[in-house]
Amino acid sequence: MSQFGAIDKLAVSTIRLLAVDEVSKANSGHPGAPLGMAPAAHVVWSQMNMNPKNPDWINRDRFVLSNGHAVALLYAMLHLTGYDFSIEDLKQFRQLGSKTPGHPEFELPGVEVTTGPLGQGVTNAVGMAIAQKNLAATYNKPNFTLSDNFTYVFLGDGCLQEGISSEASSLAGHLELGNLICVYDDNKITIDGSTEVSFDEDVAKRYEAYGWEVLYVENGNEDLEGIAAAIAKAKLSTTKPTLIKMTTTIGYGSLHQGNHSVHGAPLKADDVKQLRKKFGFDSEKSFVVPQEVYDFYQAKIGTPGAAANKKWDQLFSQYQQKFPQEGAEFARRLRGELPANWDSALPVYTPKDSALATRKLSEMTLDKIFNELPEIIGGSADLTPSNLTRTQGAVDFQPPSSGLGDYSGRYIRYGIREHAMGAIMNGISAYGAHYLPYGGTFLNFVSYAAGAVRLSALSGHPVIWVATHDSIGVGEDGPTHQPIETLAHFRALPNIHVWRPADGNEVSAAYKVAIESKSTPSIIALSRQNLPQLEGSSIEKAAKGGYVLQDVANPDIILLATGSEVSLSVEAAKVLAAKGIKARVVSLPDFYNFDKQDEAYRLSVLPDGIPVLSVEVLTTSCWGKYAHQSFGLDRFGASGKAPEVFKFFGFTAEGVAERATKTIAFYKGKDVISPLRRAF
Amino acid sequence: MSQFGAIDKLAVSTIRLLAVDEVSKANSGHPGAPLGMAPAAHVVWSQMNMNPKNPDWINRDRFVLSNGHAVALLYAMLHLTGYDFSIEDLKQFRQLGSKTPGHPEFELPGVEVTTGPLGQGVTNAVGMAIAQKNLAATYNKPNFTLSDNFTYVFLGDGCLQEGISSEASSLAGHLELGNLICVYDDNKITIDGSTEVSFDEDVAKRYEAYGWEVLYVENGNEDLEGIAAAIAKAKLSTTKPTLIKMTTTIGYGSLHQGNHSVHGAPLKADDVKQLRKKFGFDSEKSFVVPQEVYDFYQAKIGTPGAAANKKWDQLFSQYQQKFPQEGAEFARRLRGELPANWDSALPVYTPKDSALATRKLSEMTLDKIFNELPEIIGGSADLTPSNLTRTQGAVDFQPPSSGLGDYSGRYIRYGIREHAMGAIMNGISAYGAHYLPYGGTFLNFVSYAAGAVRLSALSGHPVIWVATHDSIGVGEDGPTHQPIETLAHFRALPNIHVWRPADGNEVSAAYKVAIESKSTPSIIALSRQNLPQLEGSSIEKAAKGGYVLQDVANPDIILLATGSEVSLSVEAAKVLAAKGIKARVVSLPDFYNFDKQDEAYRLSVLPDGIPVLSVEVLTTSCWGKYAHQSFGLDRFGASGKAPEVFKFFGFTAEGVAERATKTIAFYKGKDVISPLRRAF
Repeated sequence: MSQFGAIDKLAVSTIRLLAVDEVSKANSGHPGAPLGMAPAAHVVWSQMNMNPKNPDWINRDRFVLSNGHAVALLYAMLHLTGYDFSIEDLKQFRQLGSKTPGHPEFELPGVEVTTGPLGQGVTNAVGMAIAQKNLAATYNKPNFTLSDNFTYVFLGDGCLQEGISSEASSLAGHLELGNLICVYDDNKITIDGSTEVSFDEDVAKRYEAYGWEVLYVENGNEDLEGIAAAIAKAKLSTTKPTLIKMTTTIGYGSLHQGNHSVHGAPLKADDVKQLRKKFGFDSEKSFVVPQEVYDFYQAKIGTPGAAANKKWDQLFSQYQQKFPQEGAEFARRLRGELPANWDSALPVYTPKDSALATRKLSEMTLDKIFNELPEIIGGSADLTPSNLTRTQGAVDFQPPSSGLGDYSGRYIRYGIREHAMGAIMNGISAYGAHYLPYGGTFLNFVSYAAGAVRLSALSGHPVIWVATHDSIGVGEDGPTHQPIETLAHFRALPNIHVWRPADGNEVSAAYKVAIESKSTPSIIALSRQNLPQLEGSSIEKAAKGGYVLQDVANPDIILLATGSEVSLSVEAAKVLAAKGIKARVVSLPDFYNFDKQDEAYRLSVLPDGIPVLSVEVLTTSCWGKYAHQSFGLDRFGASGKAPEVFKFFGFTAEGVAERATKTIAFYKGKDVISPLRRAF
Repeated sequence: MSQFGAIDKLAVSTIRLLAVDEVSKANSGHPGAPLGMAPAAHVVWSQMNMNPKNPDWINRDRFVLSNGHAVALLYAMLHLTGYDFSIEDLKQFRQLGSKTPGHPEFELPGVEVTTGPLGQGVTNAVGMAIAQKNLAATYNKPNFTLSDNFTYVFLGDGCLQEGISSEASSLAGHLELGNLICVYDDNKITIDGSTEVSFDEDVAKRYEAYGWEVLYVENGNEDLEGIAAAIAKAKLSTTKPTLIKMTTTIGYGSLHQGNHSVHGAPLKADDVKQLRKKFGFDSEKSFVVPQEVYDFYQAKIGTPGAAANKKWDQLFSQYQQKFPQEGAEFARRLRGELPANWDSALPVYTPKDSALATRKLSEMTLDKIFNELPEIIGGSADLTPSNLTRTQGAVDFQPPSSGLGDYSGRYIRYGIREHAMGAIMNGISAYGAHYLPYGGTFLNFVSYAAGAVRLSALSGHPVIWVATHDSIGVGEDGPTHQPIETLAHFRALPNIHVWRPADGNEVSAAYKVAIESKSTPSIIALSRQNLPQLEGSSIEKAAKGGYVLQDVANPDIILLATGSEVSLSVEAAKVLAAKGIKARVVSLPDFYNFDKQDEAYRLSVLPDGIPVLSVEVLTTSCWGKYAHQSFGLDRFGASGKAPEVFKFFGFTAEGVAERATKTIAFYKGKDVISPLRRAF
């Protein structure tokens, strides 16, 4: 006898029509995928372990809508299953200021991650599955299974075509993430028409090649039993992630079903009417939810979910008694708090300490804090010995079968997969339990992950990029590896710290701010080459984002620099001093935090009346905000020994001093207004 | 009897030692991959059709070193086979100003594309294979096979892990690019150590899933016959690209062979000595090339290549007589010239013409020029109906077997693969024959392709991005789809046009400049929403990058805008005029070309004495170069109806006028120096 009956059919029809009504009311959105995937949504959600009244419960099953344009489906599910989404909210779909924006956004209750940019969601889900495995390996004890949730993903052809999902899926297979179950909406339609025009690869075979289990549902439009059987089987696959290849018809039920015209535009009014009739609803009424459907989901999800959450709370309470240390730590992490005085572990330097590359100083910082903070989970996109991201004694996060580590390990070998690393970090962060992911690559290759970095900033995932080899200081590897535009690119993003520390204290400051951040990601750009420990730097000052490093009475000019150009500017100031020219040196390691300081402070650093010359061996394009004149590199770099390359481009103490002299001459006798001044 | 003998072994040893000597002399570089891949280089090159004295011969076989860090191998091959690289050049490996930089650079003779950033090269090669198929389908005639070259690629684990190669490989399989042959250096080592730590997928099975032929060479270190047999077989695979999985030992011959320590650092002096001895060379002598090796390559490549080139020239000469029209067109393309007066086809508009979205105006422009310029080959990353990139009557570039088009088609269905699209465009452009690729996606998702865009700019491939949906004007799709940082990001890159045209004439200007560009790529950011045709715009003025659109005597302020904010600024100027405030409106559609104008012109547009307010609904971070004050959007956007979203953020005529008034008040009585003025 089937486990599904009339109520299930009614629920599926309700979902379909709600999604269509949302799109129609908004006169904007995507009805096609919701119509095809409603049965899968019903079946998957009906067996998920979740408490709609407590969307943050750490052991909930996660649901990720990687094909985020199908968001009308997600809002319908969230409403029906008792999350804080009313019918009124659904009616405000895609309206300014509503709770139901055009794509899923992380801050909404029950929305696990922001999706829409294709391929991100499934990759976030790999991160969530990693976090779950790590959490379980760290805290579960015999008879105390605190963590055993699954992560479910819906994804379409677009997600599978994007390279980021290939990277993530290969890694997920390697990592044996059996807790990850993906339902592939194989509807054979994309915006350009049939997938035959560009995508006729054998997806199932590809996923088998990655080490995944692949299951099939031939009639995803109607076969609830088939979907349920596949999900049940997938849950038994403990060492392989599962891809369920589910054939559906896009826009199922519409007069235009199976055609790409139903993908991204509302159905016509007549079509909606016949659809309602076809599914047994009143053809004239919109946003109809039969009470028995609410009751069904309450009985199937709401009530058992609340009970499971309560049972978990009790278990955790006992756990804290039996395992006070682990219990307190886990509880602290659930509160999102750092250990008291954690930052006392941050190294502090004086000018007597050795000159070191900031990447090396980053390693020393990580060494100090890695064991203090069990929520830190690091890695590198295959540049470990260059990024210096692996701390002493770290264990690799690996499937135990590999013999290379285990799931309690906190160092991830991401492989040469920057974009996936970025989105996996987002997923780890989104998982909760205060996970703090960091990932290393060369600064220049953070650009490969631009799509994921943008979503870190938009969603507010406080992940950390350890971005070494931050300039022409790379030297011989040449212009393909020397960032020029990279910092300007990320500084132009809202809500992101883009650090370029000048010495050890500034590196410590960058980590302090990054780790204490609740909702702002950080990119920490670090040098390959050695830099001296500076007179005048401190963690406290650098944490403000910008500060006067070295001053003089009545300066003629301000040299405003970051990273390796701070010590260079200090040298230039000496050259100028020898000529009787007085220079203040300002270090500006993080635009974001500097902008957060009050105006009085900012103007004390960059006051009216003194011309400001920025000095950074990268593009000058982002410096107009702070500097009257800029010395930078508005061309690509060059392959050669790093000191020779610096010299070639004029980045010497004399070169900076010469430009400072010209800047002073240029502004002589003119009003000099601080670039910080705003007319509005 | 083997086709290989002592001379081949000697040649392979010579290659290996030259590469090692380059790295040792530079004390920087990557000896590991060259030692492992020298036999494959020898075998592949020995059968390639190329004329080292004429590296631009259009029908040469292409060689792409996708694992660009192995460049010492490439320079060795280029030297040995007679390209314009001397032993002295090799001795200057990785030195500033030398001809042998740390990674292969496009402008060097015999270097087909710039590589180093992993995954790019193999994707470029897909573009080259596409170009070859198109060229052959367009110009070959019975008995006149003008185009039949192969494209060979060397790639390593890194290239295969990067998502971009997955995208490209899936598409290459779909397109049945039998002219593409990739040799995968399966050495099981990456920088982090064994590939087992992150990459144990079944690569061969994955490529079979893409529709490729997969061949194997078990002993790539020594088995020249095996490599040759695989290459021969691959060339017979006319409808499938081929991946040759070749097992090698990284650093073969070194005392540390098989260890990741030989990947990216010079071998120790003793190791080099024993290596020379092992290969039968004098252990004390560096950069040794036995004369018989030069002679061998001359006989094998130089002489037959020159003859083949000559024969092709004769064939083409006959072709031009027999097929004067096609012959003249092909000859013109080989000269890199556009047809005379091609630009007379560009549409011109007056203010009486309808308001239209600039994406629509882009479509109308493409419709006018697509058939005029057979070198244009367009496409979209699955957003054809949104990007409006497919011209009337265009034929899809598809394998004939698909029934969906043929290889003479010039519209590519890229699928949802922006990064691959970018790098494929680079490859098509690099192929020659004046190919002019364009590709469409939403502006926000050009960021997915940042790695490829950077290489367009660095290498100087004049490809064109048709980047629609350029702002919060996207409306309901919300912040995941609304660019904020995107233009600032790409404007920070050297050598790239970043257009944001305001009307039809400016769209025509953008295409004119983009198509006439020899070595600068273009991104053309286009609106989703309608914009009016402006009084005062023209192709000629807009082609300067910036110009005074509407003026008034003795302006109180300059409103400096792009795209949709130009007409908004015109409206704001009217609001101001009603209050007796005089505003000049400047349109700045392309920073790059504006910066190229002489100082007198630029200062005539933005003179001293008048405050400049920039108006653009994107980040303000890049505007300090031109404006005293900026009105923009330094936060993420919002989901809602586009006009409401504009209003919400203050982007109305009144909102702009208000900020203009405040700007005027702020600068009253102060020196106002043009932001264009430079102290040095």
